[in-house]
Amino acid sequence: MSKFSNEKINKLSAYVPGEQPKDKKYIKLNTNESPFPPSPLAVRLAKKELKKVRLYPDPDCSELISEIAKTVGVKSENVIVSNGSDEVLNFAFIAYADENTPAIFPDISYGFYKVFAGVNGVPYEEIALKDDFSLDISDYEGKKGVVFIANPNAPTGLEISLEDIEKLLSSNPERVVVIDEAYVDFGGISATSLIEKYDNLLVTQTFSKSRSMAGARLGFGVASEKIIEDLKKVKYSTNPYNVNRVTAVMGVGALRDSEYFSKNVNAIINNRAYTIEELSKLGFTCTNSKTNFVFAKCDKISGEELYLKLKDKGILVRHFNKDRISDYIRVTVGSLAEMKAFVTAVQEILGAKI
Amino acid sequence: MSKFSNEKINKLSAYVPGEQPKDKKYIKLNTNESPFPPSPLAVRLAKKELKKVRLYPDPDCSELISEIAKTVGVKSENVIVSNGSDEVLNFAFIAYADENTPAIFPDISYGFYKVFAGVNGVPYEEIALKDDFSLDISDYEGKKGVVFIANPNAPTGLEISLEDIEKLLSSNPERVVVIDEAYVDFGGISATSLIEKYDNLLVTQTFSKSRSMAGARLGFGVASEKIIEDLKKVKYSTNPYNVNRVTAVMGVGALRDSEYFSKNVNAIINNRAYTIEELSKLGFTCTNSKTNFVFAKCDKISGEELYLKLKDKGILVRHFNKDRISDYIRVTVGSLAEMKAFVTAVQEILGAKI
Repeated sequence: MSKFSNEKINKLSAYVPGEQPKDKKYIKLNTNESPFPPSPLAVRLAKKELKKVRLYPDPDCSELISEIAKTVGVKSENVIVSNGSDEVLNFAFIAYADENTPAIFPDISYGFYKVFAGVNGVPYEEIALKDDFSLDISDYEGKKGVVFIANPNAPTGLEISLEDIEKLLSSNPERVVVIDEAYVDFGGISATSLIEKYDNLLVTQTFSKSRSMAGARLGFGVASEKIIEDLKKVKYSTNPYNVNRVTAVMGVGALRDSEYFSKNVNAIINNRAYTIEELSKLGFTCTNSKTNFVFAKCDKISGEELYLKLKDKGILVRHFNKDRISDYIRVTVGSLAEMKAFVTAVQEILGAKI
Repeated sequence: MSKFSNEKINKLSAYVPGEQPKDKKYIKLNTNESPFPPSPLAVRLAKKELKKVRLYPDPDCSELISEIAKTVGVKSENVIVSNGSDEVLNFAFIAYADENTPAIFPDISYGFYKVFAGVNGVPYEEIALKDDFSLDISDYEGKKGVVFIANPNAPTGLEISLEDIEKLLSSNPERVVVIDEAYVDFGGISATSLIEKYDNLLVTQTFSKSRSMAGARLGFGVASEKIIEDLKKVKYSTNPYNVNRVTAVMGVGALRDSEYFSKNVNAIINNRAYTIEELSKLGFTCTNSKTNFVFAKCDKISGEELYLKLKDKGILVRHFNKDRISDYIRVTVGSLAEMKAFVTAVQEILGAKI
């Protein structure tokens, strides 16, 4: 760091994204990307838009927002778009947390919540999940602060019910609850249906996973009009043009191509079932994942050893060197061919150990 | 606003981007965009990249950064890329300003500096430009804080010399000085050559104006390695994937297509000279603009009236309802045909007044 940086930045530990090694070609099952290309309609619209990039984007992203609103079943006034859903999560930290209003989230969850707290100089509290990684809503009921819950959760893959979310919302109506639904399209149930009933709910979603657009950077938030107004104020005070022209039209195309979306999501769900079944046969314990990844451990090999041996074989998965989950690996669900290659590699690694 | 938002957000006045009316087709000379499409090479690379957007971007943007470093004449370690140069300006606020380290900038300058101070909850001080809008470096010499200077300045179009910038840097080596060079390619002299000598200098530039990529969102910062480390820490703590894949390859293409770039910049410089000459004949006073806009006033008509009458005629320019500059209009330099249409419209408006 330089001698000029302030205390907040000096204390900060930045988020560590999943590795992107360039030494050889890997089967990449470590950052929860889609194995399928983006929607052909999205690509077609993007090609047409390229020559217009001399002009600033529409800061309101009206067309995209109206398409999202239609898809989700809310009004345009209930939607904000962002450069990945990370950005709208950060907007929520900026608007709602402060020195007296901590961020509250589970101890095992998306690693970025802690980083957002740091960069915004606000306190946070981590609440331990149960031993089986389930979340007990009653742990949150008395807490004052802004609650961040990934549902389904990462890296565990587990979901909580809408009833639990309603308890969270109604137990303290003075507290904002953010439900981060990055993985909801793979079998979870969205809380967007609750925004009319609860003005303290913010739901975030992303185009990175189910819509194959991680490289285009697009996410959104759905909430009461007042919350969206707050978040737009933050957006207009940091980067009004956060979503670029090409990404905006790709988003519109991806939403209109609902058949392509459903086909891909179903393929992932099937490939997930295949992977969990095969891993179970090999003696693995897998969580009941509702996401596009599998979270698995095996008594015969440590999480770290398995991760390293898979990497040797040209397959990248994610291992977290962290209390309570260091036995596990997180494996993105790719194409069936990729998952077969992964299962074969695991068989070979375990076979060699016996 | 909602009842949940914190005090900082409640007090905030967001930045107001130039209007983008959709009621009819305008000659758009209000937001300093380029009249020329993006580089054909940039578009070609983008088309190829579209099918790869299922994958996250390289968070380091290594190829783009190396191309920028080559163009500017620095090392890759001296460069950070961002979602527009606004983002890197905000990173500098986050990393260097705090309650005891105010932001310092001229009273007439880019309107966003004040907004960044607000959203980051840090104090700021505006220092009055002279009556002729020139900047007296000695006004800044004793000041403690982070200095933001747009060079050339917006909306005045005026530049300060590298000697003045060196005075600013050397008069207080404990203070970060940010030189915002959004418009430097149209005839200004860049301070990037000074980063080796001064470790307290950060220079920001953008692809929005001279490289016709406002709609793609790409900017960058050039500074000492330590400053770049700080800013990267902020980037990795807010949005590691801030620059999307398509924009990154367009940036590479735009930089490699240096002939196209020079041709366009020269055209803008010529069209600026034409516009200033014609306006002067009509009795306007124009500043000595080194940018892609003209800043002009005329005793015969108020800035606001001229802006409104031009809008009636289908030509959008920018008028700032602000002390000391409300007599002026800011006119983006477009194609020669656009500038001829603009001059004709002004002639008609003034003619009708006599």
